[in-house]
Amino acid sequence: MIKVGIVGGTGYTGVELLRLLERHPQVELKAITSRKEAGMPVVDMFPNLRGRVRLAFSTPEDAGLENCDVVFFATPNGVAMQQTRALLDAGVKVIDLAADFRIKDIAVWEHWYKMEHACPDLVAEAVYGLPEINRAAIKGARLIANPGCYPTAVQLGFLPLLESGAVDAGFLVADAKSGVSGAGRKAEIATLFAESADNFKAYAVGGHRHWPEIKQGLESFAGKPVGFTFVPHLLPLIRGIHATLYAKVSADIDLQSLFEKRYADEPFVDVLPAGSHPETRSVRGANMCRIAVHRPFGSDTVVVLSVIDNLVKGAAGQAVQNMNILFDLPEDTALDAVGMLP
Amino acid sequence: MIKVGIVGGTGYTGVELLRLLERHPQVELKAITSRKEAGMPVVDMFPNLRGRVRLAFSTPEDAGLENCDVVFFATPNGVAMQQTRALLDAGVKVIDLAADFRIKDIAVWEHWYKMEHACPDLVAEAVYGLPEINRAAIKGARLIANPGCYPTAVQLGFLPLLESGAVDAGFLVADAKSGVSGAGRKAEIATLFAESADNFKAYAVGGHRHWPEIKQGLESFAGKPVGFTFVPHLLPLIRGIHATLYAKVSADIDLQSLFEKRYADEPFVDVLPAGSHPETRSVRGANMCRIAVHRPFGSDTVVVLSVIDNLVKGAAGQAVQNMNILFDLPEDTALDAVGMLP
Amino acid sequence: MIKVGIVGGTGYTGVELLRLLERHPQVELKAITSRKEAGMPVVDMFPNLRGRVRLAFSTPEDAGLENCDVVFFATPNGVAMQQTRALLDAGVKVIDLAADFRIKDIAVWEHWYKMEHACPDLVAEAVYGLPEINRAAIKGARLIANPGCYPTAVQLGFLPLLESGAVDAGFLVADAKSGVSGAGRKAEIATLFAESADNFKAYAVGGHRHWPEIKQGLESFAGKPVGFTFVPHLLPLIRGIHATLYAKVSADIDLQSLFEKRYADEPFVDVLPAGSHPETRSVRGANMCRIAVHRPFGSDTVVVLSVIDNLVKGAAGQAVQNMNILFDLPEDTALDAVGMLP
Amino acid sequence: MIKVGIVGGTGYTGVELLRLLERHPQVELKAITSRKEAGMPVVDMFPNLRGRVRLAFSTPEDAGLENCDVVFFATPNGVAMQQTRALLDAGVKVIDLAADFRIKDIAVWEHWYKMEHACPDLVAEAVYGLPEINRAAIKGARLIANPGCYPTAVQLGFLPLLESGAVDAGFLVADAKSGVSGAGRKAEIATLFAESADNFKAYAVGGHRHWPEIKQGLESFAGKPVGFTFVPHLLPLIRGIHATLYAKVSADIDLQSLFEKRYADEPFVDVLPAGSHPETRSVRGANMCRIAVHRPFGSDTVVVLSVIDNLVKGAAGQAVQNMNILFDLPEDTALDAVGMLP
Repeated sequence: MIKVGIVGGTGYTGVELLRLLERHPQVELKAITSRKEAGMPVVDMFPNLRGRVRLAFSTPEDAGLENCDVVFFATPNGVAMQQTRALLDAGVKVIDLAADFRIKDIAVWEHWYKMEHACPDLVAEAVYGLPEINRAAIKGARLIANPGCYPTAVQLGFLPLLESGAVDAGFLVADAKSGVSGAGRKAEIATLFAESADNFKAYAVGGHRHWPEIKQGLESFAGKPVGFTFVPHLLPLIRGIHATLYAKVSADIDLQSLFEKRYADEPFVDVLPAGSHPETRSVRGANMCRIAVHRPFGSDTVVVLSVIDNLVKGAAGQAVQNMNILFDLPEDTALDAVGMLP
Repeated sequence: MIKVGIVGGTGYTGVELLRLLERHPQVELKAITSRKEAGMPVVDMFPNLRGRVRLAFSTPEDAGLENCDVVFFATPNGVAMQQTRALLDAGVKVIDLAADFRIKDIAVWEHWYKMEHACPDLVAEAVYGLPEINRAAIKGARLIANPGCYPTAVQLGFLPLLESGAVDAGFLVADAKSGVSGAGRKAEIATLFAESADNFKAYAVGGHRHWPEIKQGLESFAGKPVGFTFVPHLLPLIRGIHATLYAKVSADIDLQSLFEKRYADEPFVDVLPAGSHPETRSVRGANMCRIAVHRPFGSDTVVVLSVIDNLVKGAAGQAVQNMNILFDLPEDTALDAVGMLP
Repeated sequence: MIKVGIVGGTGYTGVELLRLLERHPQVELKAITSRKEAGMPVVDMFPNLRGRVRLAFSTPEDAGLENCDVVFFATPNGVAMQQTRALLDAGVKVIDLAADFRIKDIAVWEHWYKMEHACPDLVAEAVYGLPEINRAAIKGARLIANPGCYPTAVQLGFLPLLESGAVDAGFLVADAKSGVSGAGRKAEIATLFAESADNFKAYAVGGHRHWPEIKQGLESFAGKPVGFTFVPHLLPLIRGIHATLYAKVSADIDLQSLFEKRYADEPFVDVLPAGSHPETRSVRGANMCRIAVHRPFGSDTVVVLSVIDNLVKGAAGQAVQNMNILFDLPEDTALDAVGMLP
Repeated sequence: MIKVGIVGGTGYTGVELLRLLERHPQVELKAITSRKEAGMPVVDMFPNLRGRVRLAFSTPEDAGLENCDVVFFATPNGVAMQQTRALLDAGVKVIDLAADFRIKDIAVWEHWYKMEHACPDLVAEAVYGLPEINRAAIKGARLIANPGCYPTAVQLGFLPLLESGAVDAGFLVADAKSGVSGAGRKAEIATLFAESADNFKAYAVGGHRHWPEIKQGLESFAGKPVGFTFVPHLLPLIRGIHATLYAKVSADIDLQSLFEKRYADEPFVDVLPAGSHPETRSVRGANMCRIAVHRPFGSDTVVVLSVIDNLVKGAAGQAVQNMNILFDLPEDTALDAVGMLP
């Protein structure tokens, strides 16, 4: 059994890790930390887990994380980088669901996250946990930087186009929409029901932290600098990201076939038949990215539609997928649930 | 392997049966019928099942239902009663998710469902599939009448009170609220998004078909006639029923303990600690009824709060639970998913 | 022109007052206070008012409230009672939308609101601003205690029954459901979109502050003590309260006619035809209470359905109605908008 | 008083016309037609109008439309073109809220709407009712083609950019999102609550009827052919369109100032301060288009955010605005309501 610890268990990625891991046949949940709620049984906060998760929250000090085989950080940005070295030194694998190890250029990271990085050398070592491009590296890693939710949906949508050189890398647009759970379980006015229900808006058009993360990925796929515009929007739904991607076709390629071939062996990317429109609910609760590719009116504009559940393939599910790869388990262990529809 | 057929696969209870059964280790899905969609792969209608369900819809005639071990009817009322006798004669077990076999008094049934019953003798034989009261009878049955969604939530909430004689049976009130999926996957104006979102109303206060079904149950629990008022409401959410039950306490009993003891051995009824308020989302997608019992200000009014997912414990999940009992499988096989929160 | 000040302008009742008052032909908005946002133009927080409201938030000290003709308190409980005496002394009328002056029994108020009352003598003077029972007293008042949202819906539903002695006052039940805006514009986890969307639950079954307020009213209607159970629930919608009321009929009265006669002259109570089910959206944004009365199966249980918009007839609209009465204006001035449907 | 008739009164644009017109001081509602519901009081279908609209639905034959001053068609496409000539001949002004007269190229119209046009000469005469470009022509018109909802939001967002030549007309992208009321009040499975709540998807990426309408407008603004990609999406909210527009800047222009100047005199277009993100709720129920313009990171990509209420500025409100212009009334008569927030 794999001994698992979770740091920061009171947020949505934390409870989602619990929901997925409690039925993982190879996992033994050892600890889940919350300094604020230490002592409270997890099920008092998350009653959906009653009868299934018997842990109580513990302080990080009392959690015995160094005795785990793997620790997930489901914490705000800037926490994991303070604790990772000690865990790695103790032989514990680390999967960070926050952004601490995602961006290789430390200056860029420090600019966007507005703090000094505590361990640039570990950033260099960390493997970006997008299995569809990094499976082999993940297998041998000690430290995984689990991708952001928008970055997962956007990168998987652009990947075949940029790898193949099928589009002009100079003008890429991602119009992305996220459910409100993407903002986390934090007391804030902007994400109150009465503020975000029956409403829709863009936000952070002037600059969002996922922009440099995605750009880094797109440039590695393209092998050159890209021009990339990213506009996130807040959707009045709980779970789900829909990325609508635009690019100019620069080569005469069968795009449907390109996508199907690229993802033929990927268990968690599903290329829909030509003409399809993926719905976010088709992946609700599921570790799956569904993609459709269009070329309206045969023009030179390609439109890619990419959907994920931001808490699953965009966070906790992908983290468990990475854990399965790390520990040489079948990649879909505990990740076989289908989307809940309706 | 249990060979399973589903009649009427294009509604919400049909797709929910598929979602639950596709991961049931003892089940082989043999057929799913839809006269209208015959020939269409199931996943073209329900893309969440892509890669998991390879069946296409078939006509009832071509479905080979008589070769199944069990057939689920996820059809409108009045269909199952036409086809059940032939299936029983062929040795097939039948679980009807509609109302054809729920009400023992044929005249009452015909009054409320406005049609003549095709097989009153089978109504007499049918077992009402609420395992918490009928587990032994279900085990030996050929024909199960799967309870309605409101009836499940309301009966499980009143059961301990009436069995024990703790309340006045003459004045029972159920103020019940259901998510919109309870109305089915039918093209109707009243359940359009733009009609039912950001809106709330009662309906059918003058009489709802679940009233006689619930009343029949309550009277069997109480062993005498009951006075029962039932007011259903339409909630702007997809899945979930919340029943708020009111009665007058007539005996000096520890109600919390009464409920805990009654359901101590029930895998799918969870009595919450005193003072709790169950949320529908805690059972979203799960085969579970969560109940809390209150006595505000120590008055003689008892308030019971009972929540289920109308498509799971209120329909498809309970049907699978009944199938597991029928076939002597562990009762929670394929029913172990926890509620999806958030 | 009536010079109007609003204390506490950053909450939902504050912005709703602005939405209603900006088109009131007899009103001149003089000040809206927010200590925290002093200096910020109101439209920076509430862009729906762009081009219509030119005020900026000011501190209470700088607001010149004593020069207003009337001041609305849209503040948390306990604020108005600190400032009301000085305003009254300056000849300013006060309408408090919070609970400071609603409950006549000071001990009861202090028990439920957990603070000492600052001016019990003003509680005695204050008029409870439910025009349907207190219109004459409102006209001559200096200080109006604007009713709570649940209390408005519940009291208007029970009023004809209790005044006429048509029901047993010993066993009254109000099963009430409120949209999330009722919880205010406060940063709290429980009312986040991801917590309260696609979800439903009861809360405060053990005791809610509106219980003593409603009970006080019901007892005054009945002229004797009542047995009253109140169960509030949180609805996944923004605006709207639906109260479902239960009582036992104790006199042979035509209930439909009773309600129609009682409210025949009331501009903001609309008794629906027999057999109706009022929808919350029919009063969305409107100062209106819609009521239907049922007696299912001719039993002795009466069911009343009562809907309001919690921010309008349940708060800001009723406050403007009270202001209109106070200043001898047509009662529907600025209150003539119909419900927004869909 | 202007005598008004409405053809097709049971849909969302019909009831929205009623909501706006019932408080128009110069309007006398003479008739509202519905063949199916003839004889039913309007308020039986739309109870929000109780006490305010006393009309019943009538058949078109009995409606006396030829005696009206203006007739609004709130009908499916293809109806208005059958009845318009007779009304014009009788001296009645016609405002069509459907698409019959929007597209000047008859072949294009017939291709997209899949029917033969009944009166191409009237298409030539009809004035496209977007006041921000056609105010003078509207004033003298007999027949107004009221713009579609998406076309209003998209054209107003691109107008200043194309008129001024500030962007490359060869690569324009509109990523547009609409609330579900845009699909109309029709019994269809795809727009059921349980299908479209908590869900998001694109649709009609391969071709939507608003594409040629928008393209026609953009080309007239630019004075040359444009390359235009249009991707509509279905938002889980009732009212609201958010168009996110992308183009490449080709001239060195202060975009904020460009927009502010272009719309300085427009009563129903509100250019937000630099850096803003308009919300659909800020225009909920209001005849207003709110626009913000961004140039992320100073790149050469311009992003325009444009929001309207699809039923108001995108349909009924704009139709009333056109009527006000036609009859020389103040343009904002009956259109002064602010957006309902929250």
